[in-house]
Amino acid sequence: MNPFAQTPKPPYYAVIFSSQRTEGDQGYGEMADRMVELAAEQPGYLGVESVRDESGFGITVSYWASLEAIREWKRNEEHRVAQEKGRQMWYGHYITRICKVERDYSL
Amino acid sequence: MNPFAQTPKPPYYAVIFSSQRTEGDQGYGEMADRMVELAAEQPGYLGVESVRDESGFGITVSYWASLEAIREWKRNEEHRVAQEKGRQMWYGHYITRICKVERDYSL
Repeated sequence: MNPFAQTPKPPYYAVIFSSQRTEGDQGYGEMADRMVELAAEQPGYLGVESVRDESGFGITVSYWASLEAIREWKRNEEHRVAQEKGRQMWYGHYITRICKVERDYSL
Repeated sequence: MNPFAQTPKPPYYAVIFSSQRTEGDQGYGEMADRMVELAAEQPGYLGVESVRDESGFGITVSYWASLEAIREWKRNEEHRVAQEKGRQMWYGHYITRICKVERDYSL
């Protein structure tokens, strides 16, 4: 599977989610897969790139056509349940940054 | 070491660098460490978060006070040598996205 998101010409939006996982799976793997699947069904979704290392630190960047699309995804009912479990069980710490992608270039 | 960047209140800027490493080190590890050190000395540098998994796919996000700071870092002589080696040897593919961070929230 290609780990790179196929994003359009800027401008578009990015959500950078940096997180530290707690120990043990506790249902995390299944929910993470489901969230990737569910995000891809949302209006304005452009793609996702995600990586986590053995220390449990990870960065997931999802790409969106608009801030409104990001707001709607944050409000999605199934996603809200996942966010709550994330806060309670899965993450020791996280930070979410909402960004406007102004320019990109690639190899 | 804390893998999270301690960034100020938005707005500030982010460079999302998503990359696929080629096989073998070929001097990459040493140069990557040096670039982290050198970036931290640049005016307007705010922090970095970086993760790569066993497949060789990685995301590095560096944070900056301004677009001008990002331009200057891109033009840094030692960094230019590293960029050229990256294109020629170290990366099979990469994409760099320049972003304005408009909002953030954390656990």
